[in-house]
Amino acid sequence: MTTPSTPELTVAVEPEHEPHLVEAVRAAGGAITGLADARALVWVGGGTDFPALPDTVEWVALKTAGIEEFVTAGVIDDKRLWTNASGFYADNVAEHALALLLAGLRQINTSVLRHWDKERIDASVRSLHGSTVTIIGAGGIATSLIPRLDAAGAKVIAVNRSGREVPGAALTLPSARMAEVWTATDHVVLAAPSTPETRHLINGDTLAALPEHAWIVNVARGPLIDQAALITALREGQIAGAALDVTDPEPPDPDDEIWSLPNVIITPHVANPASGLTRTMAPWLAENVRRFRAGEQMLSVVAAGRDY
Amino acid sequence: MTTPSTPELTVAVEPEHEPHLVEAVRAAGGAITGLADARALVWVGGGTDFPALPDTVEWVALKTAGIEEFVTAGVIDDKRLWTNASGFYADNVAEHALALLLAGLRQINTSVLRHWDKERIDASVRSLHGSTVTIIGAGGIATSLIPRLDAAGAKVIAVNRSGREVPGAALTLPSARMAEVWTATDHVVLAAPSTPETRHLINGDTLAALPEHAWIVNVARGPLIDQAALITALREGQIAGAALDVTDPEPPDPDDEIWSLPNVIITPHVANPASGLTRTMAPWLAENVRRFRAGEQMLSVVAAGRDY
Repeated sequence: MTTPSTPELTVAVEPEHEPHLVEAVRAAGGAITGLADARALVWVGGGTDFPALPDTVEWVALKTAGIEEFVTAGVIDDKRLWTNASGFYADNVAEHALALLLAGLRQINTSVLRHWDKERIDASVRSLHGSTVTIIGAGGIATSLIPRLDAAGAKVIAVNRSGREVPGAALTLPSARMAEVWTATDHVVLAAPSTPETRHLINGDTLAALPEHAWIVNVARGPLIDQAALITALREGQIAGAALDVTDPEPPDPDDEIWSLPNVIITPHVANPASGLTRTMAPWLAENVRRFRAGEQMLSVVAAGRDY
Repeated sequence: MTTPSTPELTVAVEPEHEPHLVEAVRAAGGAITGLADARALVWVGGGTDFPALPDTVEWVALKTAGIEEFVTAGVIDDKRLWTNASGFYADNVAEHALALLLAGLRQINTSVLRHWDKERIDASVRSLHGSTVTIIGAGGIATSLIPRLDAAGAKVIAVNRSGREVPGAALTLPSARMAEVWTATDHVVLAAPSTPETRHLINGDTLAALPEHAWIVNVARGPLIDQAALITALREGQIAGAALDVTDPEPPDPDDEIWSLPNVIITPHVANPASGLTRTMAPWLAENVRRFRAGEQMLSVVAAGRDY
């Protein structure tokens, strides 16, 4: 029989009472209610079915990192606080990026397809140890990936907008100097948002500048790569391979040439699996509930005028 | 025109003048000669074509970690120092073990085989982050793998003969207590030598004790696993999958059921690729040349009476 020291935080989890998130809210001291009585809404649906909000809702927590669909639907207003899941899934995506890179270097793809083709595979296996990996985009994914690459004995070059030093990277370059990295790198991981500036940053010119043993990993968005130029480079052996969790278009057409290339690994946009999303988000939501109740700065507040 | 402070170390690199090793010997101050004039022999051949050694050879450096073939051929004597390559390739093998584990957890195998099968693959992807990995065998491979797993957010249980604490492992158990680990682990990496004691340490009983989501990685030797029991467990979904760089027999028969299982990844014994072996060995050889010249304790001295 304790008396709450702060006003009760009533939280609606909609459109369904997702159990991991309901439990997280309760564990952090929130009370689950319907939307009419809620001070906060945890929205696990999409943009098109977003409900009309009572003025009493002070905070809306969205489940995705990218919020394009909510911006498009015009639901984000300035009457309350909005948070997304930016950064919540970074560990998961970083792990997938490492899995893709190692799968390529270690020829897991061709091993799966060609049974005990030892002579050819042995000659194609390369080591991540001792190599230089450039990460384009220095947000949460890069922050989570860098220690993994460091433990694997790889050196990291980070590229971000500002060029502000990224902890753990041997070198950080601003995106304006991106042209310098291609000849200095062994492998590339794309982890940048999709914007007009990042569109086709991997193109015929950058592919020509990369070394022949280079693998390109994309865990960001398909349009960062000029896919036609990539296919040409892969067909001609200009680079060693591409391991893609995202494509453009996505998914590729069933008769797209990209499916037939032996030096391509495609996973179906599962770096952050939808099946485990709410479980992954739960501890972060709990932390934001705690912060809201304590009046502290919230995680992943959506900045006005940005859609990523 | 410097005068050597120690007698010249003459080294034969045979049966071929392998360039990476010749360069390593020279860089460490050794002089390349023929076998008749050599104080040291770097032998990059096998056991059957091993030459008769002049008594003037004080040190033989073998290129492999396992030296069964030289023991079988009866060439190892007690007239001089013998070194093998134990530990030289640990980073490489540890990296392959991590690649296999992540490839399984991240469903790279089924992604390569089944195009954009998102619904099924999404539900099958699991994260290494937050899991417990048991490494059986706590030698160089484990030492190299533990920091990689640690950076990936996985906890490690190590099992070795003595139970002497392995740095970085959350728990170390002696092999006599191995039965305790199966229910406490999410995934297993086999990195132990092949001995009568380790034969079939993965068997019907241990497979039954492992959780359903477990992946087993074998970068050691095929006989550590009772392969018939493994196939049954994989067919029946008793564990999630097996990622194997070694098999028993090796390679599996072309019509072996193991090739047809979707939850198996097989790479053709390439964790330490033969194609890159001398390049990987070169810096270690250079260090041993330096130590020999300086009269220091050598790396990887072959202990009498052991064949691994």
